[in-house]
Amino acid sequence: MPLPVPLRGVVPPLCTPLTSGGDVDVRSLGALVEHVLSAGAEAVFALGSSGEAAFLTDDRRGTALRAVVEAVGGRVPVLAGAIDMTTARVRAHARAAEALGADALVVTAPFYALAHPVETAGHFRRVRAGTGLPLIAYDIPSAVHSKLTAATLLPLVEDGTLAGLKDSSGDLDALRVLLAGLRERGLDRTFSVLTGSERAADAALLAGAHGVVPGLGNVDPAGYVRLYGHARAGRGREAAAEQDRLRALFALTETGDPAVMSSGSSALRGFKTALHLLGVIDCPATAAHPDPLPEASVRTVRRLLEEAGLL
Amino acid sequence: MPLPVPLRGVVPPLCTPLTSGGDVDVRSLGALVEHVLSAGAEAVFALGSSGEAAFLTDDRRGTALRAVVEAVGGRVPVLAGAIDMTTARVRAHARAAEALGADALVVTAPFYALAHPVETAGHFRRVRAGTGLPLIAYDIPSAVHSKLTAATLLPLVEDGTLAGLKDSSGDLDALRVLLAGLRERGLDRTFSVLTGSERAADAALLAGAHGVVPGLGNVDPAGYVRLYGHARAGRGREAAAEQDRLRALFALTETGDPAVMSSGSSALRGFKTALHLLGVIDCPATAAHPDPLPEASVRTVRRLLEEAGLL
Amino acid sequence: MPLPVPLRGVVPPLCTPLTSGGDVDVRSLGALVEHVLSAGAEAVFALGSSGEAAFLTDDRRGTALRAVVEAVGGRVPVLAGAIDMTTARVRAHARAAEALGADALVVTAPFYALAHPVETAGHFRRVRAGTGLPLIAYDIPSAVHSKLTAATLLPLVEDGTLAGLKDSSGDLDALRVLLAGLRERGLDRTFSVLTGSERAADAALLAGAHGVVPGLGNVDPAGYVRLYGHARAGRGREAAAEQDRLRALFALTETGDPAVMSSGSSALRGFKTALHLLGVIDCPATAAHPDPLPEASVRTVRRLLEEAGLL
Amino acid sequence: MPLPVPLRGVVPPLCTPLTSGGDVDVRSLGALVEHVLSAGAEAVFALGSSGEAAFLTDDRRGTALRAVVEAVGGRVPVLAGAIDMTTARVRAHARAAEALGADALVVTAPFYALAHPVETAGHFRRVRAGTGLPLIAYDIPSAVHSKLTAATLLPLVEDGTLAGLKDSSGDLDALRVLLAGLRERGLDRTFSVLTGSERAADAALLAGAHGVVPGLGNVDPAGYVRLYGHARAGRGREAAAEQDRLRALFALTETGDPAVMSSGSSALRGFKTALHLLGVIDCPATAAHPDPLPEASVRTVRRLLEEAGLL
Repeated sequence: MPLPVPLRGVVPPLCTPLTSGGDVDVRSLGALVEHVLSAGAEAVFALGSSGEAAFLTDDRRGTALRAVVEAVGGRVPVLAGAIDMTTARVRAHARAAEALGADALVVTAPFYALAHPVETAGHFRRVRAGTGLPLIAYDIPSAVHSKLTAATLLPLVEDGTLAGLKDSSGDLDALRVLLAGLRERGLDRTFSVLTGSERAADAALLAGAHGVVPGLGNVDPAGYVRLYGHARAGRGREAAAEQDRLRALFALTETGDPAVMSSGSSALRGFKTALHLLGVIDCPATAAHPDPLPEASVRTVRRLLEEAGLL
Repeated sequence: MPLPVPLRGVVPPLCTPLTSGGDVDVRSLGALVEHVLSAGAEAVFALGSSGEAAFLTDDRRGTALRAVVEAVGGRVPVLAGAIDMTTARVRAHARAAEALGADALVVTAPFYALAHPVETAGHFRRVRAGTGLPLIAYDIPSAVHSKLTAATLLPLVEDGTLAGLKDSSGDLDALRVLLAGLRERGLDRTFSVLTGSERAADAALLAGAHGVVPGLGNVDPAGYVRLYGHARAGRGREAAAEQDRLRALFALTETGDPAVMSSGSSALRGFKTALHLLGVIDCPATAAHPDPLPEASVRTVRRLLEEAGLL
Repeated sequence: MPLPVPLRGVVPPLCTPLTSGGDVDVRSLGALVEHVLSAGAEAVFALGSSGEAAFLTDDRRGTALRAVVEAVGGRVPVLAGAIDMTTARVRAHARAAEALGADALVVTAPFYALAHPVETAGHFRRVRAGTGLPLIAYDIPSAVHSKLTAATLLPLVEDGTLAGLKDSSGDLDALRVLLAGLRERGLDRTFSVLTGSERAADAALLAGAHGVVPGLGNVDPAGYVRLYGHARAGRGREAAAEQDRLRALFALTETGDPAVMSSGSSALRGFKTALHLLGVIDCPATAAHPDPLPEASVRTVRRLLEEAGLL
Repeated sequence: MPLPVPLRGVVPPLCTPLTSGGDVDVRSLGALVEHVLSAGAEAVFALGSSGEAAFLTDDRRGTALRAVVEAVGGRVPVLAGAIDMTTARVRAHARAAEALGADALVVTAPFYALAHPVETAGHFRRVRAGTGLPLIAYDIPSAVHSKLTAATLLPLVEDGTLAGLKDSSGDLDALRVLLAGLRERGLDRTFSVLTGSERAADAALLAGAHGVVPGLGNVDPAGYVRLYGHARAGRGREAAAEQDRLRALFALTETGDPAVMSSGSSALRGFKTALHLLGVIDCPATAAHPDPLPEASVRTVRRLLEEAGLL
């Protein structure tokens, strides 16, 4: 299905439920799709960072995307990450995603080999030239260690290379520079700016972002749908209050032991543990940590879900 | 005069007008005080980064603070920066500021010699012990290269060491962590959180900050007073619109030639050039750049002032 | 063939010659192998950063490694990079490299998703468990954005997970900490420490490193063989002089236009342009820049080769 | 006395012994001067980072420098730090140091307010214009958060602004770029390049640096004199061995509790505790930590001194 122009609203970056052996749990993934669609998600994003794309072999990426496309069944668009180091490798993933029925591709700047902004622009153009799908740039400096600036993005918007941006940079100031640039060029009604910030989505939306792609939206999609509604209507205080509630819930990402686990691993475990406690997925295993979380961490996640009114 | 509890509203960090020979221009400084007070500033902050404190000898710091105290004449509180590398040196500045009639001190973490958070906490306690004035912590990682976290600040709020925070870190997420911590402890009605962000003040105020200390508030204090009013009343869309207007005006900080001037120098030159064009101060010289800006830069500043409706 | 214990000497990280269409130029790759072996290389390293592994699809990686193994023909060991984001994906590359006849694997810490040191250690252990080949850790923070510290490495040396280290961190201080730790444990005669530093190889070798893996060693392998000999014999002044000559030659990595090309792209272009001028490879194209370098850049590379006595 | 051209050898950056009340201990400072001169120091450097200049009020800086000048009594040159944020403040310190009899000034780039390289060059020129003393640039990015590059330094060498460089950046590669630039211009026999690296002094000296300014040289000046001799004579292996011995001793900088103390504080405490155990100074107090080190830390320092053959 064609992507709405611009894409708006809440677009959860789907977790990829796994079995304890590391296989994709197709049934649980289908249940997760229902969980977020019934709450009002306007699209879903498969094979992103929250979906552990970096940890999945090509085969498992395929299994996960196929399962999402089937579970969604055309009700909303399916965005698919095509995450790899450089253009030729990304194009291979893009072809696979297109064949599996994705409606749009989400692609980062090159990584491992740091690219010049001119090289990054060429990368997006060559990826776009190799696919029939609309392209959404994925700005995630914490993973790729470069920032997609307005100076790089605006020409790619103007020439039709990009249909949207998922901004996971946390840089609200740069987001506003981009939004101002889009408004000046009359492009803010066709190009979709999506914030990946779970914790400052209110500020991004009040500033003019079109939607939000929150990892925590796997757990509480309804909360982000309410937040989006408040912000869209200019209710700043109500948006901030809902955001503060979600910020408190976000503490479930910090329950892993920092002596043995990165913050990213802890966040993935937190999301999956919450989804398991909510009865959405069967097993909280992540690719990097197939073993269960310690009982104390699980209790903390449970308490946070209860305090947020979700359990 | 005692500091309001908590201090709220717009608190311009005053520029220090200089003659082309580098002396403090006392008359212009008095005019600047009138400029911001007539627009509704609730206090003023002398000898901060916008005041070029780092560039002023001790004598000139004294001249500038004395001039501000006299011009204000007790109408609003005067906050004074006591900016130096370590405790003993800060205490000397603190004594001087107290003798000159400041109403509160603004003090950074130690710099040059990077301090451990426990050492930073001790630094604030020893500075506080050496003065009768309330103490406002100045979080400015771009200058001091460490961040004042909620974990460091909250105990200093609880034990009365600190009366407020000027947050120039640009880290909205950390600001919200602090605000949530203050609310949990019932301290958000006595401790004053002031954002130093010119460009995202709306987001900080909507999230619960008590006031704003914007360098650009030297130029357009009335704009920040309006922004503050919108945000205080929860009018998110109006706040964002006023913020966007001020963001456009903020481009006057970027008129210096990046081939010869740091962004900080360019910002200081921009503020002073604007104040000169507005007729507030006599000479746009900064300590680092006593020479006038190129004519093309001045024209840009003039155009931005016109577009903002200030000229 | 088994890896020498410890591996010593000069181990060029082979460039991957490409056609202008992006295919692996097997003939030129064979010529490059002869070029470095005839100069005295003790092993070769295929599919590393200098080999543009990040830019090659899995198919092209296979073609390149197969060509190297055949050209080497068992005369020296072939190290093969298995470069990917996380364990499962690395293991797939490792299996492929083993099947193609590599003698050892070179593997980085996880990237894209930043790993905790404990997770990184687990990553190396799981990769090692999935292969019959010795494992060399590849410390390249510029690409993976984490550093392999002595605290992480030493247990992996002690338990036999790792057979060596390629240190491309440029952190001579950390290298000496590791070397001291190996000496204390009596492991410095079995574990191989290879510096990836082209420009400070003398210092690393004098400090006790066993060998050098210099990208510039594609161009001037004989120079590094001489440098290695001087350093091994403790001739500090001669080693520094040879190093200074190679540092001057290293300027060929900086001939790309910084307005359109990253420093990494410029270095790869420089190496390949030099190899082309030396008559070793047929085409200087890189994966990211198939177009030829501007004539002025080529002239600079030619001049540097002449000044270094190579042309 | 005039500075040797170029200044060569070991130049200890003197600690400033303090009483437990924070006053400068003039007697102990004199003893420290004897300790380093009797070991063969070619000059001394007062009021540097190891001298806690950042922690001393202007009065105490004056007391310390006066004491050093008197204790040295013209036997070797006295370099004096003039450490402050910007030009006008540095010039005030420079005048004071000149009046107290310093033979050369050591000055950093501006800090707190980050300067453009062009502004930094102007800073050195204006400081130089205000003094009759030779000027040594102090490259210490860990404190001032900018790097003095060869591109900035070489013009200042050519026009006579600078007589030397103290390089505490730890960037051996940049040091070699500078040394090559000096050689190309025939300036390496007049301009003095001094490395501040305690742990890689051998590499810097073998690469061509003229001397070393090691904080650890307060404790073991004779060790650095030996290291300097080996390196000067091109004895790479002997230099590395002496360096490794000093690296082991350097562990005395890491005896402070990282839960309460920065690494810088720990290093200063380590130096002073060692000097106290060696009987050189009366009290190990530092400005930031007047309280004694825990007994376990003192035992570690004692053991390291014994293992190094100093006790």
